Formats: sequence, C-alpha cells, structure tokens
Amino acid sequence: MSRCLITKAEVQSFVERCMVAVGTKPHHARSLAEVLVEGDHRGHYSHGLNRMDMYVKDIESGICAKDGEPVVEKESAATALVDGKNLLGPVVGNFCMDLAIKKAKEAGIGWVVARGSNHYGIAGHYALLALKENMIGMSFTNTSPLVVPTRGKQCTLGTNPISVAAPGKDGDSFVLDMATSAVALGKVELHDRRGDSIPEGWGCDTHGKLSTDPKKVLNGGGLVPIGGSEATGGYKGYGLGMMVEVFCGILAGAQYSNNIRTWKVTDRVANLGQCFVAINPDNFAHGFNERMSDLMSIQRGMEPADPDFPVLAAGDPERTNMKKCDEMGGIPYHINVVNYMNDCAKRIGVSPLLPCDKVVSE
Amino acid sequence: MSRCLITKAEVQSFVERCMVAVGTKPHHARSLAEVLVEGDHRGHYSHGLNRMDMYVKDIESGICAKDGEPVVEKESAATALVDGKNLLGPVVGNFCMDLAIKKAKEAGIGWVVARGSNHYGIAGHYALLALKENMIGMSFTNTSPLVVPTRGKQCTLGTNPISVAAPGKDGDSFVLDMATSAVALGKVELHDRRGDSIPEGWGCDTHGKLSTDPKKVLNGGGLVPIGGSEATGGYKGYGLGMMVEVFCGILAGAQYSNNIRTWKVTDRVANLGQCFVAINPDNFAHGFNERMSDLMSIQRGMEPADPDFPVLAAGDPERTNMKKCDEMGGIPYHINVVNYMNDCAKRIGVSPLLPCDKVVSE
Repeated sequence: MSRCLITKAEVQSFVERCMVAVGTKPHHARSLAEVLVEGDHRGHYSHGLNRMDMYVKDIESGICAKDGEPVVEKESAATALVDGKNLLGPVVGNFCMDLAIKKAKEAGIGWVVARGSNHYGIAGHYALLALKENMIGMSFTNTSPLVVPTRGKQCTLGTNPISVAAPGKDGDSFVLDMATSAVALGKVELHDRRGDSIPEGWGCDTHGKLSTDPKKVLNGGGLVPIGGSEATGGYKGYGLGMMVEVFCGILAGAQYSNNIRTWKVTDRVANLGQCFVAINPDNFAHGFNERMSDLMSIQRGMEPADPDFPVLAAGDPERTNMKKCDEMGGIPYHINVVNYMNDCAKRIGVSPLLPCDKVVSE
Repeated sequence: MSRCLITKAEVQSFVERCMVAVGTKPHHARSLAEVLVEGDHRGHYSHGLNRMDMYVKDIESGICAKDGEPVVEKESAATALVDGKNLLGPVVGNFCMDLAIKKAKEAGIGWVVARGSNHYGIAGHYALLALKENMIGMSFTNTSPLVVPTRGKQCTLGTNPISVAAPGKDGDSFVLDMATSAVALGKVELHDRRGDSIPEGWGCDTHGKLSTDPKKVLNGGGLVPIGGSEATGGYKGYGLGMMVEVFCGILAGAQYSNNIRTWKVTDRVANLGQCFVAINPDNFAHGFNERMSDLMSIQRGMEPADPDFPVLAAGDPERTNMKKCDEMGGIPYHINVVNYMNDCAKRIGVSPLLPCDKVVSE
C-alpha cells in the first residue's frame, strides 16, 4: 500500500494552523497538535491527524470552549480538583499532569482529577510527560458509552483507557496505554469495511450475545470488556472500566457512564472526567530504574513461543513504529486521510495544505 | 453437597489458637485470622481457612518472622516505604493500609508500598479498610510466578491482583478484587480434579500455546493474562500484571517477576512487594457517594441479556455470599477442609477442634 510521507513538523504546523483558523488560541492549538502528532508517531492512527476535523468542528460550533484556562478548584499537598472549563482535552490534560508532577516532587505523589474536559487524544501522552521527570505517570479518561457490561445488553461504559508509564534506565520505559474494552471500536470498523468476521470476544450483538459479525456489533450491539465472555473473565475488564469511571467521572463530578453524550454526537458539551497521576520513585526504594529495566529484560529475554514473535514489554510496538517513522523521515499517511484533512483545511481557508509529493510503500 | 456450618467466631478463634500455638504473637494471629475468615465469608474459599496450614508451616519453619513490627523506612506527606520485616502478610498489610488512610486524611491520598512481606490473603481486605473511613481503597501484591506473558512460554509474572473499593451511599460499595490472570490457579485445579476441560483462554501448555487441557496448564504450562490470546487482548492483561509488579516489587525494592520463589516452595523468605492506597473523596468533587451509587444503579438496573442473570457491580457476588452465610449463621465448609485443618491442629496440640456437628446441604 502506498502512503504519503509527511514530516512531524509539517503535521504539527498544519494542525496548529487549522485550529487557529477557527479561533483556537495558538498555545492551545499547539498542545492539541502535539498530542495528535504523537498519536500518529506512536502508531495509534485512530487518535491522530485522523481526528483533527472533530476538534475543528468542536471549536467551530462552540461546543468546546476557545477562551480561558483550566482552574484549580480544590487542592491539597498531593491532590487537586480541576475545572477544565470545557477547553480542548489536551489543554486540560497538560495542565493537570504538570500539576500532578509538581505535587509529586513535593509530596511524593500527585493525584489530579478534572471535570469539564474533552477528548484528550492518546492517554499515553500524559503518562509519558512524567517520564521526563523520571517519575511514574498515569492517565485515565472516561469516554462516550461503547462498551456493554458483562451480562448486559446496552452500552453503559466507555472504552475508558488506562495508561501507565514507568522509567527504566538509559531512556528505556514501560508504557501501557490500553482501552479497557477488548479492542478499540476502530478495529471492528476496519473488519467490517473489509468484510471480515471478528474474533469471538471483541463485541456483542443487540441481545448482549458475543458475535463474530462486525455489523451486529456496530449496529445496536457494542464492544465487550477485556476478557470477553463471563467464562473467560470479561467481568474483570468490566470492573476495570468501572474503576476508570470511579477515578474520572465519579471523583471529578463530571458526566459518567451512559450520561456521557453519544460518540460523535455533539448536541451538548462533553464534560468528560479525567485523572492524572505522577509518582516519584525517589520516595520509595533506591534503584527503581535498574529494577524496572531488569523486569522488562526478563520478559523480552525469554524464549518466545514462536521465534518470529518476540515477547515484548508495553511500549515496544510504539517504539518500533517511532523508529520506523524516524528512519523514513516522517509519518506515512493514507492518501484518503490527507485528502480529507486538506479538504477540511480548504473549507476553513487554511494554506498551505499537507504535502503529498513523497510517496512510500508499506 | 453437604457441608459443615461453622460460625465466623469459631473459625476466627480456631485460626488464632493454631497460629499462637506455633509462636505467633496474639495480635498478629488475630490479624491473619480476620483476613482468612473474611476470605471465606466473601466466598473466596481459596484464600481462607483452606490456606491456614501454609501460614502455620511458615511460622513453624521460621521462614516467616514471629517477632517485631513493620517499620517505616522513608516517608513524605502522602507516601511511605515500609519494611515488613518478613512478618505475616496481614500484619504488614494492615499496618500499611492504616498508614495510607492516615495520610489520605491529611494529604488527600496515601500511597504506601511494602517490601519484606508475605502472602496477605484476599487483596480486597485492605481496600475494604478504606470504606470504613468513606475513602477509596486500593491494594496490590506481587505473587509467585504462575502467569505466562503474551507470546512467551515461561511463567514470569504472578497472578498479581488488583483490588479497588469505593463507597456508595447507605453502606453500598463497589469492590473490585481480581487477579490479572484470566482465572485463579484453583479454578484450573478444580477442573483437573473433575476431569473436565477448561475454556480456551485460561491457560497455555509448555509451548506457550493456549490449551483446554488443565493437565497441560498445570504441568509445565501456566495461566495466561486476562484477555487470553494476543488476538483477544491478552497483551492488556499482561500489561496490567506488569503494572502491579511496578507498584509492588519494583517500587518497593522487593523480589519481583520470576525472582519470587516458586509457589508453595518455601526454600527462602518470600520478600513480596505490596502496595496500599487510600484516596479521600472529600478532596475532590462534592457528592461522591451519590454518584457512586448512581453509577452502580445504572449497571444493575439495566435489562440483562438473560433474565436469570442480572447485571452486577463488582462486590455483589461477595455480598450475596455473605448474606447467605449470615442467614445460615455461619460459613459452610467442605468436610475435607475441616478434617484437614483439625489434623493440622491436633499435630500442633490445639484444642478444641473445629466443630462439625451442624451439617447443611448446598
């Protein structure tokens, strides 16, 4: 498949210009662009440039706020409650994670929750910020309902991701960034477009029954929690999705569960709840980085079941993707994505458009 | 099946007497007995009286310490590192959780990790302690290696449980208490004894291939992380098992991964790592308990896929079990368990033995 190779700097600048064109403050546009570029660079294309038009529309329609900054509503040595003031998710997320890191420097841990937030891109972005300070970072968000709890048949939880990043030595790190659903909605959509069936344990039909037909999952059914059926431990994934909701919507006093607006429907403000944590390993046993690297080495070093598929540590697939991009000198995008975003840019009067003169085959 | 009904007080007193008989301090014996009784009362029989002989042997052999108390090694407003001094797990766990709660009262959150600990019973016990203070409680422990990471074929992670408890209103609560493996080892053992096959996605054989034969899982294979195969998201369960290890062995400087002694082999001290967290909802948005109850009501109130199996919130199965026990006036034990424990008691000179004159059929 041939793709257009675009440098990170070009994507960054393009997203910033588009967002500013519809009235976003330049430093807010920069925050959003950074998260989207990082999503693509790490290989999570469902959370990158691909979603820019959603943010553009949110600002254009006024359903997401252009003006103001997040505000700390309540604070203690190690905690804070932040009102995101309905600003772009990355603006709220960066503000909260910076605050969590500051608190962790003083109190050993910072646990910051936000209400009044919006989609914040990849959860991993915020957890990764802590690595720069040699801290453990965590980030959680609730999302629009797409997941059917074990035994149920309606979507009452989001894909509610968990991200945890922990620094090893010499720049190595553990970076978990996962939805608490078995898979992302995008994977089911992809199988549907290709006419393929999906593995049992990804989603269910409108009766709450596991289905291998992506159409049934997408039309009236839903994703299921990690673990799949009750027999294979799906109730654990359901419990983890609820845990994320406790940390986000419930602690923050934001929307939660099926009170959150429907995915892709922007009839009202999102008022998402999010949670950001930084933990300073200096407050615990000496030698954290060495042990962390050793833990990952134990896993990576074991003989794999299939010699072609080595055992990985969380974050390794993303590292491989980033390396590949860096060697190519940019991020490879499907031409349809580039055309779609350029059409969006033209409509709002932005130029120059994304270049598509460098084609690579993947 | 007929079972012996024994009151909670009788089990509590019996375990205390057995532990004291081998030299445990009375207040340490009490802590252990409480956790074991609670395990059985909640229906987690694999973590109750059933395991008392293991603790008796650990104290008898001296592989677990009788004397001393846990010591705080490092401390900040919201964090602490505790040396468990190789004492019984529940002694270490209660000490750490009490400290976490104290810190959460002052700093909004307490994050306490322990090294030098031992098996601590059900993870939920410690999370539940926070509910008494209307706080969120969390508890994590690493354990002996029993889980094969995705793509691997050796056990390099424990079943590394996660417990999170959060208070609703009127005494209701969300209580997640789950291993990060698809199932507990005991479930595989039970199927093996019955000659039944196991569902695909519980364990793998010695080549790292998913197997439905419990013998293969138990002999050279291992449990697999929640999610099962890589295609159905097993790498997420693997990542969560690693996350627990980061919070426990890595932060605490305890043993970790496949450095932890083999399950049921006590050739050296366990030196387990554990993590205890308390979060004070008062430091966040007002109305936590109401939202928490509403979140659970949304799930419980939805029409279930099968009318005979209502949608539950984490903690509901345990509540049902406790109610059943309380109505019967005790905990129903299999006669083999009672006989085995009475034999253990006779050997160490403890009397009176557990009564078995009240038989109930289940």
